[in-house]
Formats: sequence, C-alpha cells, structure tokens
Amino acid sequence: MQNILDHIYDYIDQHFDEHLAATQRYLRQPSISTQNIGIQECAELTAGMLRTLGSEASVVPMQGGHPVVYGRLASKSSDRTLLMYGMYDVQPVEPLDAWISPPFEANIVGDRIIARGAYNTKGPLMGFLNAIQSIQAVTGDVPVNIVFVIEGEEELASRSLPQFLARYAEDLRKADAVYFHLPTEMVKGIPQVMLGCKGALLFDLEVKTLTTDAHSMSAPVVINPVWRLIWALNSMRGADDRIIIDGFCENAQPPTAEETRLLTSLGGAWGPEGLKAMYGVTEFRPDLVGPDFVREMIFAPTLNINGFLAGQPLAGIKTIVPASARCQLDVRLVPDMTVQEVLDKVRAHLDRRGFTDIQVRFVAGYNPSRTSVDQPVAQAAIQSIRELGMEPRVVPMLPATAPIVLFSRPPLNLPFVTSGLGHGWLLHAPNEYLELEGLRACEKSAVAFLYKFAAI
Amino acid sequence: MQNILDHIYDYIDQHFDEHLAATQRYLRQPSISTQNIGIQECAELTAGMLRTLGSEASVVPMQGGHPVVYGRLASKSSDRTLLMYGMYDVQPVEPLDAWISPPFEANIVGDRIIARGAYNTKGPLMGFLNAIQSIQAVTGDVPVNIVFVIEGEEELASRSLPQFLARYAEDLRKADAVYFHLPTEMVKGIPQVMLGCKGALLFDLEVKTLTTDAHSMSAPVVINPVWRLIWALNSMRGADDRIIIDGFCENAQPPTAEETRLLTSLGGAWGPEGLKAMYGVTEFRPDLVGPDFVREMIFAPTLNINGFLAGQPLAGIKTIVPASARCQLDVRLVPDMTVQEVLDKVRAHLDRRGFTDIQVRFVAGYNPSRTSVDQPVAQAAIQSIRELGMEPRVVPMLPATAPIVLFSRPPLNLPFVTSGLGHGWLLHAPNEYLELEGLRACEKSAVAFLYKFAAI
Repeated sequence: MQNILDHIYDYIDQHFDEHLAATQRYLRQPSISTQNIGIQECAELTAGMLRTLGSEASVVPMQGGHPVVYGRLASKSSDRTLLMYGMYDVQPVEPLDAWISPPFEANIVGDRIIARGAYNTKGPLMGFLNAIQSIQAVTGDVPVNIVFVIEGEEELASRSLPQFLARYAEDLRKADAVYFHLPTEMVKGIPQVMLGCKGALLFDLEVKTLTTDAHSMSAPVVINPVWRLIWALNSMRGADDRIIIDGFCENAQPPTAEETRLLTSLGGAWGPEGLKAMYGVTEFRPDLVGPDFVREMIFAPTLNINGFLAGQPLAGIKTIVPASARCQLDVRLVPDMTVQEVLDKVRAHLDRRGFTDIQVRFVAGYNPSRTSVDQPVAQAAIQSIRELGMEPRVVPMLPATAPIVLFSRPPLNLPFVTSGLGHGWLLHAPNEYLELEGLRACEKSAVAFLYKFAAI
Repeated sequence: MQNILDHIYDYIDQHFDEHLAATQRYLRQPSISTQNIGIQECAELTAGMLRTLGSEASVVPMQGGHPVVYGRLASKSSDRTLLMYGMYDVQPVEPLDAWISPPFEANIVGDRIIARGAYNTKGPLMGFLNAIQSIQAVTGDVPVNIVFVIEGEEELASRSLPQFLARYAEDLRKADAVYFHLPTEMVKGIPQVMLGCKGALLFDLEVKTLTTDAHSMSAPVVINPVWRLIWALNSMRGADDRIIIDGFCENAQPPTAEETRLLTSLGGAWGPEGLKAMYGVTEFRPDLVGPDFVREMIFAPTLNINGFLAGQPLAGIKTIVPASARCQLDVRLVPDMTVQEVLDKVRAHLDRRGFTDIQVRFVAGYNPSRTSVDQPVAQAAIQSIRELGMEPRVVPMLPATAPIVLFSRPPLNLPFVTSGLGHGWLLHAPNEYLELEGLRACEKSAVAFLYKFAAI
C-alpha cells in the first residue's frame, strides 16, 4: 500500500510542472460571483476538467443563480463514496491597484502563484483534480467513488445550493461523508483538520431621511441619516467591543467538552502570531491574551461592519447633508444561533430604540454546523496527515464560513470535514496566493486522504 | 432718478434674451474647484467679461491655489467704492445620473436654467454684470466705483483669498463696503438681506487598524476601524442630537438684541415650510417647533457628517474587516467660536476618550462674521428691495458660509452684505437652477442697489 502511495507521490513530483500549468490555466478564468464575471465560462471549464478524468459531469443551471457543476467518478475497487464539495467562484478583486501581479494572470512571483482564487479555492480544487489524475495514471482507478458538487455561489453564501441539494438528495445522501480540500497550513507547518464551521448572516442597514442631498447649512434642522446610522450601530455594539443587540448571544452554546479539549491543543494558527503572519495585523484587541484569544477566535459570534457609504466621499469637498447612509454587516454565528433569529433580533432591537426609520435588508446567510472528531472522515483526515509526517491541529469549528450546514443537516445529514496540506493566504484580499510547494503538498495530501478514507 | 432706473429696467427687458444667452455661455464653462476642472479657463473668461464692460481686469495667480479675478471699474460721477465679492468656482456634480439636464449644458427646462453654478453663483454674477452693461448702455457710466474680487476657491473655503486680500489690502480697504449679489428669494417672494454669516470648519477623521483588508473571520480578535470611528463619532454627538464635544459651545454667543429683534420677523425662508420648498425635506427634527426652529437654523453651531467611506461598499459582497475608515465632517461656527479652537477641542475630546488612534485632518475653515443692520450698505440693500415693491427679511446671520469674515476683520474691516432678488435653488445638489424670471429680477435688483448705495 505504501508502495502505491510512494509511486503516486513520485508521479506528482515528476509531473508537477504540468500540474502547475493546469492550475494557472484554471486561475486565469475569472469567476467573480457577486459581479457575475466569467461564471458560466468557469462552470463549463470545471465540468470539462472532470470529464477529462473520466467523470460524468454536468453544468446544472440554477433558477436565478449560478450553475452547479455536478460530477460522478466511479471506483472499480470500493463501494465507499466521498462527496467532494468545491467552489469555482471567487471574491471581487478591488482594490485592483494593490495587487503586485494582476489577479487573473496567475503569475508566479517568487515561490508563489498570485491570483484571485489561488488559495480560496480554485487552486486547491485543481490540486485535488491533479491528485486524482496522478492516482489514475499510476493505478488505473480511484480508491473511492467520488461525487463532485462544485458550486459557483460560495461567496454569495451558497444561495442556490440548498435547492440543488434538495433536488438530488436521494442520490447525494448515499455518500458516506463530505470533504472540502483546502491548504490548511495558513501558518506554514501547522496543518489542520476542521470540523464544522460558523454560520454567517450578511445584511445591510440603510437610512434615508431626505429626498435629495441638501446643503449642509440645513444641518441644524434636518435629520442627518449618517448620524442616525451611527447611533443605531453604537446601540448594537458598545465602545467596550461587546455586541449588545438584545438577546444576541442567548442561543450561543459554549464549546462542548470535546471542543474544549481540542481547543487546548490548537495554538499556532489561530493565535496572535498566526494571525499576524496571515494578516500582517499590527494590533489585536488588547483584552485577549493566552487561551482567551483562540477561544474567542474560534467560538465568538461576531458583528462586523464590512462596508460603509454615505455622501460622495471620493468627490472632494462636498458640504452636504447626505440624503441616505448605508452600511454592510456580517454576523458569524455559532451553534445554536440561527440566521433568521439574529435577523429578527436586529429588527426588534432597532425598533425598541426608535430606529424604525432604519431599513434592515437581508443579503445572505446560513446556519452554523458541528461535526464530531470521531467520524471516520475526520479520522481519515487526521491519520492521512500523520502518515505524511505532520501532526494536524483539529479545529472544532472553522471561524470562517463554508456551506457545511447544508450538508450536515437534513436532508443529507452527512459528516463534513475540511482538511489538506499546503500553505497559501490572503483570501478575500489583494495578492491572494498559494505557494508552489503548497500546491504539491495539497496534491499529495489529497492522495493520502482518499486512500485512508477508502480503508478506514 | 426714477426715470433713469425705469429706462434701465426697460433696457433689461428688451435685451433679456441676450442676457440669458450670455448667462448660459458662462454656465457652460465648467469650473469645479475641488477637482480642478476648467478653473483657469473660467478665470480667463470672467476677466474677459469684465474687460468688455470697460473694467481693468487681471487674472492673479495664487501660489498653490486657483487664481483670483481682480477688476476695477471707475465711475465718472461718484467717489464711493463698492467692493463686489464674487466666485467663479462651483461644487462637483456627482451624482451625475440624478440631473434631468447635464450640469454644464445650461439648458432651459420649463422656466428654469438648469446648471451647476446657475444659482451658486455664476448665474447671479452674470446677472450683476448684465446689470452693469445695461446701466452703461442707458447712462454711459456706472453709479459708483466698483472693485471686483472674484475668487475660484469659494467651495474650498477660500484658501487663497486671505493671501490675496493681504497683498492688495492697501487698495482694497479704501472701499466703503463689500457686497455679494445673490438671488435671495430661496423661497419665492421672500427676498432677504443677509448680515454676516456662520464660519465653517471642514475636517476628516480617519482610523487605520490593519495594513490590509482582512477576511472577516478575524473579526473577533482584530480592531475594526469602522467601529472605532462609530464610537468616536457617537461620543461627539449624542443620540439626542446634541453636540457633546467637550467645551464645543462655550464660546458660542447668544444672539445680540438686534439679532433677536430681526429674528422675530424672519419666518418664511428659514422656517420648515421654506426649507421643505427648498430641499424637499420630508422630516425635520421633531423637537424644533415655532420660533425655536428658525433660531436653531440661524444661530446653532453644527457638527455635520457629509461623507463616510469604509471597505468597498460598491463592490458587492465583501466579507472583510476594512483596513481603514474615513469620514468627512463640517462644523458651522457662530460668533465667537473659531476654527482653531474647535479643531483643538475635537483632538482633545478624542484623546481624552482614548481615541488617540483617530487622525484629525484639517481640510479648510474660516471664522464667523457679523455686520450691523445700521451700516449704509445694509440700508442700501433693504431700501433698494423696498423700492422694487418687496419687503426684505433681514437675516442677522447667514446659516451657510461665505468668506465674509476675510473682509469684515483685519486687514480690511469692511461691512459685508449679501442681497439681491430672484429665485433659484438646489445649490450643491443635482438640478441646481435659477429661474429665468429670477435672472431678470437679479439684474434689476443689482441696478437698484448700485444707485441706492451711491445715494445713501
């Protein structure tokens, strides 16, 4: 068995230049879901790549959304089935002038591929397909049956995915587990196995008090929508940094005993040093030290403002009272908070304080998810990384959000694990990258995982 | 005397089409000071128009700023001198798609000229020059000596004007008074004579907590600059709408007895109905009723947010913690507040509350100004409007800001009055306009004022 794996690893090494070139080609196809740029083209390209592997593959159109690439690759030697979750869409690229290499040229700069999607997650998706191609080249088979569900709306909170999963639930629930392949060495040398993840609620707040921008001489007597929004926001999160939306945390569960146990061994990736390395952050909340820091990172629900616009702030001096003000927020949810519950609480909180003039607009969301470390798919991920000579940290809950809950709750009820080797970063930011060696490690860890999952 | 005036008014009526066409030509020359669009061209055009009237005129370059148009038109019959203050610059035009007619086409739509600057103030400036041309055509002279100081940075808080006035102070202080000609019927049928005006301080607040935008998964442990800015702003103006910057109002003087007397007769233009007509405002501060409303409008200092930008709010869904947040504010100052004092108080207020991370950037400013109603130039304005059959409201302090203080304090120490007939509006906003009949009234009131000022 180890002999076969070694042959496959050798194959990857010998064909790495081709794999890298294929990955660059894939990254050069833009696929910005929120701006609907290159989506259909990328879906077709992805399906074509699956077919090249001998997989059935179709581009399934979704009503009012971006298509899902649905594939099925049979194993001659196993009756186990892995549902491979993936995404072919990426975040926008603004601010464009902050990139050291254009986001869709996928140039190699030093030891990195720089591209939107290099890390999140077209790079590792291509790495996974390269791994399958290598396995096939060496063995003429794949170790398990693989069902591909590759969506184009992950960055839009997977709006159409529930509809897709419901339509094909009969088939999909026959899978044994769901797996999302990522280069989890965000901090190099610290691979991870991620169980479950936070949910997310994206919403806007908007206030309009005037029918047109007014000269600011009228400021004494009109209602300035920006101030309204500031006071409303201030009532939602206090200057002590606490989220004070009425009842916001009442359904947030503390970590389970298992989660707490896993947390104590985490450190690194989710501590200040790891985040400094990942974000170049120069300052953290000063009240978080030691284990509190990681605990907060992994288990705290959040209320984040990700955008704010009022007036014409780029137009130079404009002495106006703006007619309206708008801000965009995202909430990260922990079990057992729900999207609808939080949205309702925001509305009620504002109403109770007289902010009935503030519109709350739902943008997207899904609920949080948990998977037990005892699941075979989790153990396969842990053991495959160990066999490659590294010790994974098991993250009880991913602080980012992936549509795990859509698989882990009805109608599928499947365990869901995210894992994989390799280093890359700057997802959602300029100069997103995947290291060249990260791609190689990503491919080898996919091979190891598939064989371990077949055997466990 | 009335005979001469009637001849001039007739001349204006007979040549109104030509005057209107000249005004449209002037408005078609863009002159956006903050974006440096068309400034030099507009300065040259303005100087050329003065020369056509027989005036000396020069375009005086200002170090690091926009030129001042400086002119001098001698009267054969009077030794009185009026310093005519004017501005040839305008505000930006964004949002462009809100205009019913392009801002620099100066089209006539119904009974209005629609253009950026139609009201504020290239329209009335051209009206004043048309009036002079009409006087000259009928009498071969002008009733007083006129010195023109027409700047290109009014919308940039007259940054270079102090330097200009200091350079020519010796000559300029020989003038008897300063006059700014405006169609003061913001509410049609209610002409005004404005004495003094509020000062203005424009400044930015900016917070930067990250070196690059970060994925919002890090929200639990990093410092979000938008929240910092919101909490800082909330500490400056409370949800009860009061400005609570430490010591903000301590130098704000209550109205004088004269100002209070004038205030009681104001109503109209500065009451809710007037502002509804002017701004289309659907909602005012509910706590302001009756005389409190006008008193607040005229005498209250303000702290207005005119712009706010964080993240990439126009880029669709961006789940980031923005690296920085910025907002733009303007303060309207009443006597005896000063620009420097308020700026220092903002800094001290923020520091005292731990907001040392928030940068305060001075943009522009000047101090408030007062002129007594007993000044001859004020009486000339009042009486000339009465002679045209209307009763002016005397506004003790203009709630907008003009660089009056630069003339009314050393080195010039000249009384300053703003007046004129005609209706227009939407200054600083889309679809700024001057009524065609407003231009005609503007011209006739300029004639009446000049003769009254010569005689009083």
